[in-house]
Amino acid sequence: MRSALSHAPNLLSMKKELLFTPGPTPIPPEALLAMAQPIDYHRSDTAVTLIKDVLEKLKHVFQTENDILFLTSSGTGAMEGAVANLLSREDKVIVIQSGKFGERWNDICTAYGVEVILIDVTWGDSVEPQIVEALLTEHPDVKAVFATLCETSTGALHDIEALAGLTRVRPTLLVVDAVSALAADDLQMDNWGVDVVVSCSQKGLMTPPGLAFAALNQRAWDTVKCSNLPKYYLDFRKAHQSGLEGSVPYTPAITLLTALQCALNRICAEDIRDTIARHSRLAIATRSAVKALGLPLFAISPANTLTSIRLPTEIDGKAFINLMRDRYGITYAGGQSQLSGKIVRIAHLGWMNENDVIVAISAFERGLVEIGYEVPLGAGVTAAQEVFKCSRGEK
Amino acid sequence: MRSALSHAPNLLSMKKELLFTPGPTPIPPEALLAMAQPIDYHRSDTAVTLIKDVLEKLKHVFQTENDILFLTSSGTGAMEGAVANLLSREDKVIVIQSGKFGERWNDICTAYGVEVILIDVTWGDSVEPQIVEALLTEHPDVKAVFATLCETSTGALHDIEALAGLTRVRPTLLVVDAVSALAADDLQMDNWGVDVVVSCSQKGLMTPPGLAFAALNQRAWDTVKCSNLPKYYLDFRKAHQSGLEGSVPYTPAITLLTALQCALNRICAEDIRDTIARHSRLAIATRSAVKALGLPLFAISPANTLTSIRLPTEIDGKAFINLMRDRYGITYAGGQSQLSGKIVRIAHLGWMNENDVIVAISAFERGLVEIGYEVPLGAGVTAAQEVFKCSRGEK
Repeated sequence: MRSALSHAPNLLSMKKELLFTPGPTPIPPEALLAMAQPIDYHRSDTAVTLIKDVLEKLKHVFQTENDILFLTSSGTGAMEGAVANLLSREDKVIVIQSGKFGERWNDICTAYGVEVILIDVTWGDSVEPQIVEALLTEHPDVKAVFATLCETSTGALHDIEALAGLTRVRPTLLVVDAVSALAADDLQMDNWGVDVVVSCSQKGLMTPPGLAFAALNQRAWDTVKCSNLPKYYLDFRKAHQSGLEGSVPYTPAITLLTALQCALNRICAEDIRDTIARHSRLAIATRSAVKALGLPLFAISPANTLTSIRLPTEIDGKAFINLMRDRYGITYAGGQSQLSGKIVRIAHLGWMNENDVIVAISAFERGLVEIGYEVPLGAGVTAAQEVFKCSRGEK
Repeated sequence: MRSALSHAPNLLSMKKELLFTPGPTPIPPEALLAMAQPIDYHRSDTAVTLIKDVLEKLKHVFQTENDILFLTSSGTGAMEGAVANLLSREDKVIVIQSGKFGERWNDICTAYGVEVILIDVTWGDSVEPQIVEALLTEHPDVKAVFATLCETSTGALHDIEALAGLTRVRPTLLVVDAVSALAADDLQMDNWGVDVVVSCSQKGLMTPPGLAFAALNQRAWDTVKCSNLPKYYLDFRKAHQSGLEGSVPYTPAITLLTALQCALNRICAEDIRDTIARHSRLAIATRSAVKALGLPLFAISPANTLTSIRLPTEIDGKAFINLMRDRYGITYAGGQSQLSGKIVRIAHLGWMNENDVIVAISAFERGLVEIGYEVPLGAGVTAAQEVFKCSRGEK
């Protein structure tokens, strides 16, 4: 009889697929089951109640008293909506670009023929607010600054509070892509004076992709009134007015709204400070683990949303990602565009706890060893355990 | 002991909610359960296979060899996409408006500043192709005709084959909103020479709302190359190119794609002619039942998609719709805009069979009697039974 250890392991027989991608993120079971219920009509009284409830609860996550509006689209739909609803032809804007999603602001503004003053930040870095300040002083007629809370392609966090300090004393609007970071990294829309925040369903809101959101303050709504860019499906005013009545201008992704309600019930059961603190704790543990394994973090100011790890040049990042998925059932995200094959991105976002992070780190260790890159096996997990250990009596 | 019949019935204790709305339509159970599975990453090999499979199977339903592209949006997103991708500023188009969704073509074109020649058809009626022909002759520079296969707000079918006969011999494109009628009413994109067809997930494709589709022939793609209207999220070329690789430019509603695959597996198991014939049979039975009850049909040329019934003026249509939902668990659609409260729309669309239609009709009869409008109870069901009865040996 062979010993258990000498027997070749079948890692696939009880495989469990685990997603550590920065969207979609895992969906809580009650939200999954809600989507398996017979579908309802979006003009029913039940749907009206659902829509109103979801839009009210989203204010908690957006940290705002402003109304939330929603679109059936990916987050990019809400980004384009912000451009098309706020701006007019001949407008001048500042775009902060430090990765693929800052590039997207630039691409959208360019598609609409708006004049863009581009701040091109090295990928992995975050913008220095002084640079924005200098440009705002040089170009006082800039209509809006387009920024990113967490640049998902690099894992870098931007100092939105500092940027809002610059724009709220000027006639310039601050528009923030909080697509990946909402509920994970702090964004105090009202307290900081952010004018527009856009996000979507499949990240910190732990709902499948297909819903996008925007919140606008009064200054932003006043600007919307003057916009002359063409829009129809992404018209914020129609979405806003309908939403107030629990209605929609066009058929919404109602099964996703049902799932979102379940997810928001979890999120709203705790203070948003606690939600963000939880994400911070998972992020700190992950970064500690990566450092203990001797690998460099990619982002200079890393977000709570995800951790980006620069891979040693001898590792083929794409092959590593595929190995982890096929053999360990673990899906990390690889690098995008210029970072393709060069970094691994591990999200700790949404329906995610300490046990999940331990699994993500331990599989990462074993995967590196399997491809022949020696790391001190267990060192990452141990470092994370140190972060996670509770003092006696700690909650 | 009271007899069963003298006991006041509790209609709510075993209530089953049944949707007879022209979108969303009921979802088959395997599609519902597919959405309750743990979510997958949209860049995985599994997702690539899923996207390619779905886009290939959609060709069967669109009756075309042209590629299908998809967007995460409602059907209106694909309608706007058609306008923004095909047209340029200063273009002139013909819009056929015979209800709320023809109005939408007009509204979208107007939002983009395109010159619209409007054919305003009485609601319930369908366009006479000669009127379109006369306008095409008068305005040979018209870039496109925007038409509707089934005008969902009235239940009227338009003669798309005749319209295509006019446009395919001219440089003018024919763009068809098949949002509600795809798979229910015949639309032979290739055989008839229709240039662009748009549709969405929550109608004949019996999938929850959130996905929209478009198919373009070569003539249409050649026009897209010259378009100068702004677009980003709704960019057809990006969606098309990505789709060919089983990819997406932006995070798609992947749970809905999974459900759609299940639904398409059902639809593709039969010939599309059989799918349309089934819808036709359900529609004929419903119309026979309505006539047997002595009520007038609203549409002059009714579609297979849904049956619109003009209510006697003494009936409050909204109250009737609410009664049917609250007491019988049956959701019909009411009238929209100018038809609000005046018609009832019963869809027989998608995952719907003869038993469902019998339920829809029998509840309709009882509901009318309950509100005090006398109809010959059972006459509608009997008329439907006559349509449905099989000859011995018939399939």
